[in-house]
Parts: sequence; structure tokens; C-alpha cells
Amino acid sequence: MFPRNTWYVACTPDEIDAKPLGRQICGEHIVFYRAGDGQVAALEDFCPHRGAKLSLGSVCEGQLVCGYHGLVMGCDGKTVSMPGQRTAGFPKIRAFPVVERHGFIWVWPGDAALADPAAIHHLEWADSPDWAYGGGLYHLQADYRLMIDNLMDLTHETYVHASSIGQKEIDEAPVGTKVEGGQVVTSRFMENVMAPPFWRANLRGNHLPDDQPVDRWQVCRFTPPSHIMIEVGVALAGQGGYHAPAEQKVYSIVVDFITPETETSHWYFWGMARNFNVKDKALTAQIREGQAKVFAEDTAVLEAQQRNLSLHPGRRLLMLNIDAGGVQSRKLLDKMVAAEQAAASPVAQAA
Amino acid sequence: MFPRNTWYVACTPDEIDAKPLGRQICGEHIVFYRAGDGQVAALEDFCPHRGAKLSLGSVCEGQLVCGYHGLVMGCDGKTVSMPGQRTAGFPKIRAFPVVERHGFIWVWPGDAALADPAAIHHLEWADSPDWAYGGGLYHLQADYRLMIDNLMDLTHETYVHASSIGQKEIDEAPVGTKVEGGQVVTSRFMENVMAPPFWRANLRGNHLPDDQPVDRWQVCRFTPPSHIMIEVGVALAGQGGYHAPAEQKVYSIVVDFITPETETSHWYFWGMARNFNVKDKALTAQIREGQAKVFAEDTAVLEAQQRNLSLHPGRRLLMLNIDAGGVQSRKLLDKMVAAEQAAASPVAQAA
Amino acid sequence: MFPRNTWYVACTPDEIDAKPLGRQICGEHIVFYRAGDGQVAALEDFCPHRGAKLSLGSVCEGQLVCGYHGLVMGCDGKTVSMPGQRTAGFPKIRAFPVVERHGFIWVWPGDAALADPAAIHHLEWADSPDWAYGGGLYHLQADYRLMIDNLMDLTHETYVHASSIGQKEIDEAPVGTKVEGGQVVTSRFMENVMAPPFWRANLRGNHLPDDQPVDRWQVCRFTPPSHIMIEVGVALAGQGGYHAPAEQKVYSIVVDFITPETETSHWYFWGMARNFNVKDKALTAQIREGQAKVFAEDTAVLEAQQRNLSLHPGRRLLMLNIDAGGVQSRKLLDKMVAAEQAAASPVAQAA
Repeated sequence: MFPRNTWYVACTPDEIDAKPLGRQICGEHIVFYRAGDGQVAALEDFCPHRGAKLSLGSVCEGQLVCGYHGLVMGCDGKTVSMPGQRTAGFPKIRAFPVVERHGFIWVWPGDAALADPAAIHHLEWADSPDWAYGGGLYHLQADYRLMIDNLMDLTHETYVHASSIGQKEIDEAPVGTKVEGGQVVTSRFMENVMAPPFWRANLRGNHLPDDQPVDRWQVCRFTPPSHIMIEVGVALAGQGGYHAPAEQKVYSIVVDFITPETETSHWYFWGMARNFNVKDKALTAQIREGQAKVFAEDTAVLEAQQRNLSLHPGRRLLMLNIDAGGVQSRKLLDKMVAAEQAAASPVAQAA
Repeated sequence: MFPRNTWYVACTPDEIDAKPLGRQICGEHIVFYRAGDGQVAALEDFCPHRGAKLSLGSVCEGQLVCGYHGLVMGCDGKTVSMPGQRTAGFPKIRAFPVVERHGFIWVWPGDAALADPAAIHHLEWADSPDWAYGGGLYHLQADYRLMIDNLMDLTHETYVHASSIGQKEIDEAPVGTKVEGGQVVTSRFMENVMAPPFWRANLRGNHLPDDQPVDRWQVCRFTPPSHIMIEVGVALAGQGGYHAPAEQKVYSIVVDFITPETETSHWYFWGMARNFNVKDKALTAQIREGQAKVFAEDTAVLEAQQRNLSLHPGRRLLMLNIDAGGVQSRKLLDKMVAAEQAAASPVAQAA
Repeated sequence: MFPRNTWYVACTPDEIDAKPLGRQICGEHIVFYRAGDGQVAALEDFCPHRGAKLSLGSVCEGQLVCGYHGLVMGCDGKTVSMPGQRTAGFPKIRAFPVVERHGFIWVWPGDAALADPAAIHHLEWADSPDWAYGGGLYHLQADYRLMIDNLMDLTHETYVHASSIGQKEIDEAPVGTKVEGGQVVTSRFMENVMAPPFWRANLRGNHLPDDQPVDRWQVCRFTPPSHIMIEVGVALAGQGGYHAPAEQKVYSIVVDFITPETETSHWYFWGMARNFNVKDKALTAQIREGQAKVFAEDTAVLEAQQRNLSLHPGRRLLMLNIDAGGVQSRKLLDKMVAAEQAAASPVAQAA
């Protein structure tokens, strides 16, 4: 259950630096590579000659060369040449719309005719010198929507991440949920609390004291199909909280791109963008390492949850107030998928 | 093919000392934990909120707390509380009858209304200071009945355990089989033989000479659903064998609890209870280590046998005199399962 | 899709030196062992008593003894004896025709009545002192026909084996394909080229200069069901190429026996026979090691190809001129299978 006519993060540029990358996205086996003009290309990972994996081949003078018999494949899915062969009649393979933007490679797994690069999620922090970013990638054996649920309800931090970002006050603060402008937003504000270890380290990272009460906030923004940006931070207590002046707070955006692989597995691109002390690369590495540990804690929980749900496919789950963010996000996804299906069968729609 | 309305060994107390234990028994995914009053609890391993595995949670002040969002679950499968939530309407999850007795945790995977703790297998040696016990647990990819066959016919010791407890005379001694009082009993008596290495070590462990002929016995007692207690021992030859005075023999009970996990896998709780030199903990450890090696030899044989049988599901096996113990044990199991099925569909029965 | 009434290489003699070998061939689970008279035996790997794997047993005085309860099995599939049992009525298990010849163990997985040892592939080099041989075994998760395709079209060497035996001139030389005498033969001849690293090493191995142009040849001979002998070599340029005198060339036969395990996996027996410097065992070992590395490169390509084809079972592949060797080989196989099926259902055929 995932929309196809939409942009997903497929990989990061470094993953295709040295050689082609084979990755399954929304059920499609795709090879990604950097073509001659530096443009990224994405093709079906299937050589039209004998079915070899093109991702096992190499890029030679900007063209993808099959590693089995040397077929040279064009970015459009048409064979360019093959030693000793006339290739004009070779069947075309599928090419996927693909764009490199904001430090990520984005792919459109659905109908190529509908792909509009202007619709790619805008990331203001990605191209600004006022921000620093570090991140990573996890591969989870779980429906991507379980990760959406997870990130749209941070109550779990108290339990899953008790030793890093969790604290009892999250539980106690009411969560607000609203849907606006095609986004789902959940938010929590905690006033006058002690910062947990991860945030104490960040306070020190911005040369602020870590032993004083703070105001803490979490604002989770879901944008279809599965991009979640979470504004998180702490400010010295009483300085305005979320609106405190920059020198009194540490403020970051937790970046989450959740890309379905199959119905029960996904690629989780996680990271953190911050606008304090941005030139400190050691701090970037330290935050990244801390975040990697925190997010690894979710993987075991979600994969076990998936196994449980697969064992009991018909079982109804609860939808509490804390789940409203995930519930509303899934509603947007359901609408997208329904719209795609209606468009795909216009007769049925008309009848 | 296993009875459900019966008590199985689920785990040992040490397995739930530090944290909850998730274990599949008779197809049911169950979480076991020690509740506030020290009582053991067993619940469906499925949080009613979002399907998380409760076994990944923790026990806090004697209550099971889900590791995802902090739902507090009661021993009866009713939610006790959840931060910020009214939980009265939460669906109940299944609670399994569970009892700690004789050093084991026993679970009843079937109809809870029928569970009677008085029916738990009595283990005389377990609660007596005259006996010492050591044991372990193996997980086998094989129908639990293959292990019953294995233990009710010790002919295999000559071949599978040639270097430890096997000896040619086992093969040569006739086996007796009888069904009495709901038990199946197979037995073998060998007179005036040399003890194999495992038993020579035990003779020394009881300060007896290990280089003289002995009388050896094996009496295997199967009690449904899958408990096998094997009286084994050797006495200095001519002193009365099985009935020899305690100071002329070494006598033990091989303890086997065989708990189905799925149709083709099981948990094998093995151990040995002895009534000689019972305060010698080094001897207990030494026997346990020897037994672990011996019983590991069976696992490869049984798992390969299971793969063979799965490849040829319709193939008839032989039922020789040596197999009578397993055959009779399976008959008792067939009767139990038939009775359960008849009780479960009274209309069909009446018709 | 594989013929059954034919001889396949099952294993090498060293694999049954120490103990029985269990191996699946054409879907049949078979135990191979060396019986009392030194003859090789091949039986269904299933003890008629309780279904134990006979390959976990041992050979005792030339007879296969089941490792579970000591049943003694004869080479003909009839039980010889079992301790304490009369075995006359025991069901027979299947015995497979098996022959040791030319340094390999050959098995006939189909109708034993049709097995004729005279039909075993003749290997002239195998029994001659003028030749040396070294080889190995790989287990691949791929249809055995993908390996046939691979070996009947050496174009892939340029890409898969670029650093050892590949060179651009292979691509550029036209390939010839013919079917004659029940064989498929593909061939390529390259004149006045520089030898690639593997062949430069072989030139040195025969005390020839490695820095001069050579004439190179590849003649691939497919014999059903799946034996491919490839005549390969290089001669100093202008000395007659394939027909150059022995002292001006290095000439070998790449030996490939491809034995189906299941529909999508196979055993690949590879090796090289050479008729130069045959007493140099270090050279044999060096060639074997080099070949092992080269052929390991194919396994990744073929297993990925198999996964791709399994994902797209209906997809048509191209059949170019370079694929003619594989295509013709598959036609011979199709005919063999069709003939077996026709023979198996004579009534349907007559109707």
C-alpha cells in the first residue's frame, strides 16, 4: 500500500559515486548511476539481452555497460550498442524519472508522464550555508507506515529511547494534531524540564549550560508520501521556548525520508539538520553517531511489530489521541492511492 | 499434531529473571514474566495498542510495561493503565494459565477453563534434598514426536552416542514395552557388562570402581503430553542391579520435557536428577556438560530426519518392536487430540 | 527442466573417501559411498526404518550402516540386517546406477533399466599420462542452463573476467556455431593478439615467452546433458595457431560438468586438463587457483541473473548470434526431455 506517482528518496549521491547501485523501491528493481553529463539515471535493473542485473555492471564514459556481455544501455532504456550486434530492435527497458536535489537522489516509481520535478519536497536547510547536516540509512523489515506512525507520535521516546532523548515529561505533555495544507502536524511543548542526555550534549555543543531547566518542543510535519521533518529543540527556560532567540536555544530538524521497498520492508533515510555551530564538523559527526544509536533502537521494535502484525493480519489496532498523527497521515496516503487507482481504471470510475 | 489442553514446560525460572521472555509454544506466541507478587504470568505477546511485542518491554514494579508506548498490562490480559489514556475500553488480550512448580514454569496453551494445576506432572526428585539436578534447553527443527520416538527407544545410543553412553549390549538386550496407568514404559536390563565412558565417570563420581562389570538398566516412562523420565543406572554386577543397595550403584533419572513450538519444531528441556553425592556441585556441572554433548548428537539426526519426512510426507515408516514405545506414546497423543476435537465440535459429534 | 535418463557427474572420489556423502541431484536426495569391494554405491538418502538420513551414517566393513538404529543397507537398496530384527519384509529403497570413471563418480537419476555405462562421456585426457588435471566444485543458486549459456558464449570473458582471461579481441572475433554428431560446437579464433594475464602465466608455465603476440583459440563443445569441454590455448603468432606444434603453444581443455540440483540450483564441477609440463604439480595448483578465482566471478553474475529471471518468469530474452551455442544446447535438452516424457506416457502418445 504505497502511492507510486510521487517522489521518493532513492539514495544519497555517495552511494553511486563509485559504481551503479541496485535498489528495490516500491517493488521495482532499479539501477541508479551517474551518467556522462553528471546527471543521475534510473533504469529497470534488467539487461534486455539475457536478464543480467545491470547494477553489477559498470559506468564507462558516462554510459552503463552490462557486466555480462558488454551491452551499452542508454539513460532512456534504449540499448545504445553492443559489440558485434545491431541493437535497433532490442526491446526498451523502463526508465524512471530521477532527480538529484537537496543532497538526495529522488525517484518517481510510477507513471513517468506524470513526474514533475517541481513537486519534489523543498528542503530549505539543504542548500543554505546557515545549516549543517549529517545522516544515514537503515533498512527495515517493516511496512513503511509503521515508521510513519513511529515518527508522528514521539510518545515512544520515553520508552524506546529512555537513555538518550526520552523523558517522562513527553508522556505527560498533551499532543496536538492538525491537518493543514496537505500536511499533518503533531506537536508537543514541555516547559521548565531538565534536558535528557542527547539534548544536554547539544546544549554543550552550542556553548550553553546543560544543567539548567529548559523549554523543549517537538513539531512533527508529515508530507506525503513519507517525508517527515521534525522540528526539535530546547531553549533555556523562560526565554520564549520555540521562539527564543537563537543564542538561547539549540534547534534542529530531524529529517526522515521513508521509502517503501516492498509491502513489508523499507529504506529509512534519517538525519539531522541544525542551524547552530554549523562549521563544527566534529559536532556533526558526534550528533550523527548519537542519532544512529537512537534510531537503531526503533528498528528492533518495528521489525518485531511487523512480525506480529503479519501473524494477525485481521486484527484491529487502537487509534488513540497519540496515534492521530499516524492515522491522519495514513488517510492522506489512502486518498493518494485511491486517486491513482481511479485514474488507472477510468471506465470503472465512470460507471 | 499436539494436544492443547494440557501442561507443557514453557521455560525455566532463570529465563525470566532479568526480563520478559517471548516464546512460541504450540503455535502461540506468548510472553512470560514474573509479576509483582512473584507469581509467573503468561500473556499473548501482542500489545493491544499497536501490536508491539510485549516481550520487548520490561517489568516495572511487578507489572508488564510495553516497550513502545508504555501501556501497562495486567496478568489477566486487561490493560491496567497507559499514560494519558483511559483504558477501560481496551480489548483484552489472551492470558494463559501458568504455574511455577518443581523448578519449571508450566503453561496450558489450550482452553483456560479446563486448566487444573493439580494435573501438573509430579516430580518427586525436584523438591527433595536427597536429589541433585542439572539440565539445559535445546531448540530443534523437528516434530516433537520425533524426540519422543528417540527417547522411548534407546537402541539408538549404540549408534548416535557410541563414544559416551552407547554400547553394543543395548542392541542385544530385548526391550520390554507396556502401557499402564496412562503411561508408556519401555525397559532394558543388561547384566554383567562393562560400563561405557559416561557411566564409568558416574561410578567414580560416587566413589565406586569403574573397571568392574556392572548390571545396567534403562526404564523409560512416557507421560502425556510429552514428559519422559528415564530411570538409568549401573550397579556393581551381581548386587541386585536395579534393586541393588544405594552404595553399590549409581542411579539417575534422565529428565525430558518436550514442548512443541510449531508442527515441525520444539523446545527440548533435558536434564538429569541423581540421588548420589548430591552436594557435589562440580559433579552436577560435569554431568550436565557430558549430557549436553550427548544430547547435541541427537539434534543433527532428528533435524535431518524431519527434513527427510517433510520431503516424503506420505511415506510409511516401519514400526518394529523397538519402536513400540514411540508408537504407543503416539496412540495416547492421538486419543488426547481426538478427544479435544470431539469436545470442540459437540454438534458434529452428536450428529 | 532436465533430462533424467542420462549420466551426470555426482561427485569426485575424494568426497566419499572418509564418509558417505549426501547430495541432491535432479531433485533426488542421494547418498553416495564406497562399498566393500571398492565399488561406488548410490541410494536414496532415506532409511526405510524411520526416515533417517543414511548419509549421516557410516560405512562399516563395506556396508552402509544407518547412524540412528544400526540398520545395515545393501547396495541394491535392500536391507541386509538390523540388530535384533528380521528384515526380509523391509521395503526396498531406490538404488541409482552409479559408475566411477575418468576420475569422477557418475550417477543416472532416471530409469535404472535404461542406464548403460557405455554411454558415459569419454574423457581421453583423464586416463592418459600425457595430461595433468586440476579442478574444483561450486554450488550455484541458478538454473544449470544459465551455466550452459555462460560457457557456450565466451564473449562474457571480456566483461566478467576482464582482469584474467578477458580481452577486447574476444568481442571482436566472430563466433561460429554448429551442431554435429549430437554435439554443439562454438568457436572463436583470434590472430596476432597479446595474451591476457592468465595465458601469459601459462606461457611461462610452458617455458615460452609471454611478451610476444599470439594466436588464441576457444572451441566449446557441449555434449548432453550438460558436459562442456572447451579447447583453449595460445600459440606464438604465425606458428599455425590451433595447429601449431606442441612446443610453440600452450593448450588446455577447460572441463565443465554441470549437474542440476533443483530447477534453480546446480553443482558446477570445473577444472582444466593440460598436455604441457604435466609433471609440474605446482603449476597444476597455480592454474587451479587462478581458475577458481575466474570461475567465482561467474557465480555472482549467474545467481543475480537467476533472481532476475525468477522475478520476471514470462519475460522473453534475446537470442543473438553469440547466444546460438546456448540456444542450440537447450534445443538438444528439450528434445531429450520430450522423448523421456513421450516414453513415460505411451498411451497418451498413441492417442
